[in-house]
Amino acid sequence: MSYWIITVGTELVTGLTLDTNSQHISERLGKEGFFCSRQVSVPDDVAAIAEVLNEALASCDGTIITGGLGPTSDDVTREGVAEGLGLKLIFKDDLKAYLDRWYSRFESFQDIVYRQAYLPEGTVEIPPTTGSAAGFCLDAKGKVVIVLPGPPGEMSAMLESAMPFIRARWAGGESYFIRTLKTTAKSESWLETTLRDIMVREDVDVGILAKPGEISVQLRVRSDGKEAVDRIMNEVEKEIRSRLGRLVFALDDETLAEVVGRLLCSQQMTLAVAESCTGGLISKLLTDVPGSSAYVKLGVVSYSDDAKINLLRVSPHVVKGYGAVSEESALEMASGIRRISSADIGVSVTGIAGPGGQRARKPVGLVYVGLEAEDRRDAWEYNLSGPRWVVRARASQVALDAVRNYLLDRAGAL
Amino acid sequence: MSYWIITVGTELVTGLTLDTNSQHISERLGKEGFFCSRQVSVPDDVAAIAEVLNEALASCDGTIITGGLGPTSDDVTREGVAEGLGLKLIFKDDLKAYLDRWYSRFESFQDIVYRQAYLPEGTVEIPPTTGSAAGFCLDAKGKVVIVLPGPPGEMSAMLESAMPFIRARWAGGESYFIRTLKTTAKSESWLETTLRDIMVREDVDVGILAKPGEISVQLRVRSDGKEAVDRIMNEVEKEIRSRLGRLVFALDDETLAEVVGRLLCSQQMTLAVAESCTGGLISKLLTDVPGSSAYVKLGVVSYSDDAKINLLRVSPHVVKGYGAVSEESALEMASGIRRISSADIGVSVTGIAGPGGQRARKPVGLVYVGLEAEDRRDAWEYNLSGPRWVVRARASQVALDAVRNYLLDRAGAL
Repeated sequence: MSYWIITVGTELVTGLTLDTNSQHISERLGKEGFFCSRQVSVPDDVAAIAEVLNEALASCDGTIITGGLGPTSDDVTREGVAEGLGLKLIFKDDLKAYLDRWYSRFESFQDIVYRQAYLPEGTVEIPPTTGSAAGFCLDAKGKVVIVLPGPPGEMSAMLESAMPFIRARWAGGESYFIRTLKTTAKSESWLETTLRDIMVREDVDVGILAKPGEISVQLRVRSDGKEAVDRIMNEVEKEIRSRLGRLVFALDDETLAEVVGRLLCSQQMTLAVAESCTGGLISKLLTDVPGSSAYVKLGVVSYSDDAKINLLRVSPHVVKGYGAVSEESALEMASGIRRISSADIGVSVTGIAGPGGQRARKPVGLVYVGLEAEDRRDAWEYNLSGPRWVVRARASQVALDAVRNYLLDRAGAL
Repeated sequence: MSYWIITVGTELVTGLTLDTNSQHISERLGKEGFFCSRQVSVPDDVAAIAEVLNEALASCDGTIITGGLGPTSDDVTREGVAEGLGLKLIFKDDLKAYLDRWYSRFESFQDIVYRQAYLPEGTVEIPPTTGSAAGFCLDAKGKVVIVLPGPPGEMSAMLESAMPFIRARWAGGESYFIRTLKTTAKSESWLETTLRDIMVREDVDVGILAKPGEISVQLRVRSDGKEAVDRIMNEVEKEIRSRLGRLVFALDDETLAEVVGRLLCSQQMTLAVAESCTGGLISKLLTDVPGSSAYVKLGVVSYSDDAKINLLRVSPHVVKGYGAVSEESALEMASGIRRISSADIGVSVTGIAGPGGQRARKPVGLVYVGLEAEDRRDAWEYNLSGPRWVVRARASQVALDAVRNYLLDRAGAL
């Protein structure tokens, strides 16, 4: 079954807001075997919404629309859907009662909020969760239409509520299954060469895709039987793992920080991080994971030489002699953060994220990672390319990967 | 002039990768007065690319396509564009020479990389910057087509190279101008009510849009004269500022972290951050800004009580008596980080980001912000709603806003 995602908002097409809803929906429905054949963003405009909805219904099995259900006058998705499908908008008393309760927390509110009490006729209402707006499901021209609010938290909760409706309508058809092997391979073309014979298999479509610090192999199979798919996927995954070994760090939507967290938990180890050029990003990635307080003991963002010397006890001679961006400084930062935090593992990053800050023989992108544990003290040099945010993302990935590799070594040694 | 953005990649429609290119392009071309009427993502599929390209050319003045120009066999945007427009692909010797140089850094590479030496006939080549693939511009059916690689760093650099081509083709028509006032207003409907008479003006289209911790007012004017637009925009902006005061924190794409950085620089003040539930996000946001090392002295992610007590010197009695998530702990964390960093301002956040961790009378979303400076010591309580990442984003925003407000007070007092 294939479907479109339509996200509505002038803030999207003008670039003010990054659309994260499309990714979430594609990933979530992909787990059920449903294939998104197109993602579209349009402005808050009744005619544009009506037009794209009809295009979607003409070319796939349904569509999921998000955004434009709020209280303000530029929220016109209800009107766009009604116009596109030739439906009337009906005032719902239960939604009005909900809105009265919801807005009672504010000192005052205006009647404009009652716009959210209207839904197109013949819809199945999805009750609001944390927000003020309801979503809705409907059958149109034999296709499925699901309309959800734009705020990502509300959207994802209501998408779950809509899943039984979606499954009931789309059950039984051919499905599209995906499995993604995330790797720390160095280049796309190396990976393509290494997997060349697998890439040309007839029974599975293999794609390679790169983002900073992470190159993935995606296996895709169209089939009406999950068992046969699993057999093929398992076989191909096993073959790829046998060639790539530890370069494969995760499956599907698991992040490197989650893998590191899982390894730390299973080995009952704790971690502390000293960051310079990554400026808090590594701590942020680690603590994006719920429950990470169990193994992240401390993070220090030692952006200044002072902080490296006074707090992490990096020797002033090292900073002066080798520079703050050096293997020696990385090693002392790792030792320092481990000592002051009493964590089992200390990891550090120091480097030049750019665009400024480059020095003689220290170009933008030069990054050192240090790691200290009871039985290991090591540092690595990297020359990373790209703009500031890419260098920071890559540096965070290689630092987390150093921790992963240490923990894998250690598990092997136990 | 209106255009579409087409982003190509099975990784996009399957949700593996978040599309950030569309936002960047919309924002960049918006500054030139060009209006994106639709953003579309399609899979790596020759027919799908050809189809959507022709839809775009039928309904607007041109299109910008990104992605699918790499070396691997699923990179088929060249083929899709050639098929859609009925053009031949031509082998370019200069691109082959570039590829030979580019790939010489690798120990070995395969002939497959030469796929990137082909471009549709009649195109203006955009030389590669950091990556291996060239982009290209062409005139098709009287419309503009710009094709750029997918990696965001390469894409944004080449988009700049393509700007003269775009401007030359699109000069002279009606433009779409946008100005965005970012605010820390509490609710969309409050803002709509406060600005109700402005929202119904005929000469400017006013939109309100919310994301965690930030509600924006977007002013949009369609016109063929920039001066008249500026006059209207300035008048409306002035009126909105007179009603909202400090709630307006930035214009257009400036972030709250950039505003805080600018205020710190102009007052020659330094900042240090102690974070608990935000786990490094505040430091990360501050140091996303190039040059932030001039004013960010130190960040500490004191996720554990131990770190709060041993490193930040929060009194164990405070942690025991009031809890780590309390006004008293926030105040002591702010004092502690200020003391150990010798920064002028210490700011702290402690709270419960969820989904776990809630305690009696301490629900998920309870967050305290503390701030200490020479002439100020204060703390604030917030009850933030939403999933973990939303609570973290909101908590970071309110903490940065506390610093902004302190610096604004201080500037007023000087």
